[in-house]
Amino acid sequence: MAKSPETEHPVKAFGWAARDASGVLSPFSFSRREMGEEDVRFKVLYCGICHSDLHNIRSDWGMSKYPLVPGHEVVGVVMEVGSKVKKVKVGDNVGVGCMVGSCHSCDCCAEDLENYCPRMLVIYGSIYYDQTMTYGGYSDSLVCAEHFIVQWPANLPLDAGAPLLCAGITTYIPLKYFGLDKPGKHVGVVGLGGLGHVAVKFAKAFGAKVTVISTSPNKKKEAIEHLGADSFLVSHDQDQMQAATGTMDGIIDTVSADHPMPPLIDLLKCQATLVLVGAPNKPLEIELVPLLMGRKTVAGSCIGGMKETQEMVDFAAKHNIKADEVIPMDYVNTAMERLAKGDVKYRFVIDVGSTLKTS
Amino acid sequence: MAKSPETEHPVKAFGWAARDASGVLSPFSFSRREMGEEDVRFKVLYCGICHSDLHNIRSDWGMSKYPLVPGHEVVGVVMEVGSKVKKVKVGDNVGVGCMVGSCHSCDCCAEDLENYCPRMLVIYGSIYYDQTMTYGGYSDSLVCAEHFIVQWPANLPLDAGAPLLCAGITTYIPLKYFGLDKPGKHVGVVGLGGLGHVAVKFAKAFGAKVTVISTSPNKKKEAIEHLGADSFLVSHDQDQMQAATGTMDGIIDTVSADHPMPPLIDLLKCQATLVLVGAPNKPLEIELVPLLMGRKTVAGSCIGGMKETQEMVDFAAKHNIKADEVIPMDYVNTAMERLAKGDVKYRFVIDVGSTLKTS
Repeated sequence: MAKSPETEHPVKAFGWAARDASGVLSPFSFSRREMGEEDVRFKVLYCGICHSDLHNIRSDWGMSKYPLVPGHEVVGVVMEVGSKVKKVKVGDNVGVGCMVGSCHSCDCCAEDLENYCPRMLVIYGSIYYDQTMTYGGYSDSLVCAEHFIVQWPANLPLDAGAPLLCAGITTYIPLKYFGLDKPGKHVGVVGLGGLGHVAVKFAKAFGAKVTVISTSPNKKKEAIEHLGADSFLVSHDQDQMQAATGTMDGIIDTVSADHPMPPLIDLLKCQATLVLVGAPNKPLEIELVPLLMGRKTVAGSCIGGMKETQEMVDFAAKHNIKADEVIPMDYVNTAMERLAKGDVKYRFVIDVGSTLKTS
Repeated sequence: MAKSPETEHPVKAFGWAARDASGVLSPFSFSRREMGEEDVRFKVLYCGICHSDLHNIRSDWGMSKYPLVPGHEVVGVVMEVGSKVKKVKVGDNVGVGCMVGSCHSCDCCAEDLENYCPRMLVIYGSIYYDQTMTYGGYSDSLVCAEHFIVQWPANLPLDAGAPLLCAGITTYIPLKYFGLDKPGKHVGVVGLGGLGHVAVKFAKAFGAKVTVISTSPNKKKEAIEHLGADSFLVSHDQDQMQAATGTMDGIIDTVSADHPMPPLIDLLKCQATLVLVGAPNKPLEIELVPLLMGRKTVAGSCIGGMKETQEMVDFAAKHNIKADEVIPMDYVNTAMERLAKGDVKYRFVIDVGSTLKTS
């Protein structure tokens, strides 16, 4: 008979889990695996709340297995390392993002793109190599293969930097891959939530001109004065949108809610790309002629590889890029409610290290 | 009062025109403009029949103006050149494709991509700079600005080469632009009509491995034995399609009829591109997750610039790439009926020079 989450491994662990699709999180006792020679064990200090955590705890995609401990923007301090670990030592600060395993033998892995490995394992909700469930960062500790550990830069805050492990890499990489990481480029950023606000910061740090495209006129001041965007378009203002036709070298679309593609495609210059990093539920409806008439492309992009992730946090540290509203562990259900309503500026980060109480 | 097509210009011309959305073509007297100092006048020898000619004569896109003289794959022999013309001389063979004008000042023109110029003028159905309608290559002669004239390679047949001016450039350029023009690349070609069969020939000439994807199992023998494709997939055979999942570096989709995108996207490797060069009537429905999970892209591509077109015909001449079923002018309405039914292998080319009779 399969053992319970509390007894299947030798090391006790504790966190907050959803038990069913109500998505309500509550204290949860489980266990972490014993250390392999390439493993790193660390105490969790901070963990960001990603919108996909909300989707997963509520099984919005119909695939969630319970109990489910969310959290894939995890920062902590190393407690123990396996005998072959070289990257970090006890006492180092580290991060772990979405991934905890990949095949290391496919074409994608060979290109350091573990994120596109067909056998990639995620930090929570995957069946690990030992056949047990993975549990995420809303917990006191984690054990992770060294390969998927990020070395934390000295001057990057642990709390405000945590969201970079998902929101940061998700937006940093398409800016680079699609050639938008240069002065002189004009980048559109759709949506100004957890992903969008980091996209603006990275694009500005690359020297690009940035235009935020949003349904909410009241975000204009924030976008320009606080985040440093160069301009702002209200997506339902046809005059504004019309005036910006054909002006953008690329657009990073961070919005998960269903929304129309044609007005965004019209903003692109010839040969420019609309990159979607959110995941709307419905299929996209795309008119072909505007793509044909400008050799435009529509692309998807999903996080990044481990080398890319390390590069991204190092870049963020150098350019002082971060994102947060720090909350205690027992505020998490309220935070989820606020997140569902879009009431967060811009990313909740749970202070796990100081506020996760075992009783 | 506006003059009639027959009297608005000084030089008499004759061709076949559609008079209304029935699309029936019949003899038509009109006129060609007097020569400018950068113009080339040539006698039309051959003209390919593109599927878009059929759409245009029937006003399938609701934009046709009549009388309409189709034809944008035009090959002929120079009769007269303006005082500043340097590229060709009287007696040279030349070609003209879809374009006869562009602004020469926008970003696209600056990159030799006149095909994406917002003010590009097409060879028929555009209002030219002198405010008269342009008429295409189903006619005895053409006057065209030197810039849009292609120098015809000595060893490229005039008849079988004509379709390259649209079908050829439409498929050659995306193979190059999306990096599919190399040995070791695996290219899918969807559809085996006028565009598809040339796509196969170009991709093979580039040294790529080519798989044809078609609804018609009976095209397999032709695709492999005659065109040199390496393999063949029947698009509704789920086992065949499943076995080819994730194997292609790129796909050139030449089909204009509405058809589903997800099975094609599944054939792509990570970071590969589905390029659409046909123009389905309905918007594309694209599931985002398969794009996200492999950083895949969907793109449109439309003909090519003049430099690219010259390069393409030179490449075709070198690699003996051509496409045709030569017909006389008065067979054109039957040819259009056959084209509508897909009954052509692979491109009709009208022998205008020998068979266009003025009475």
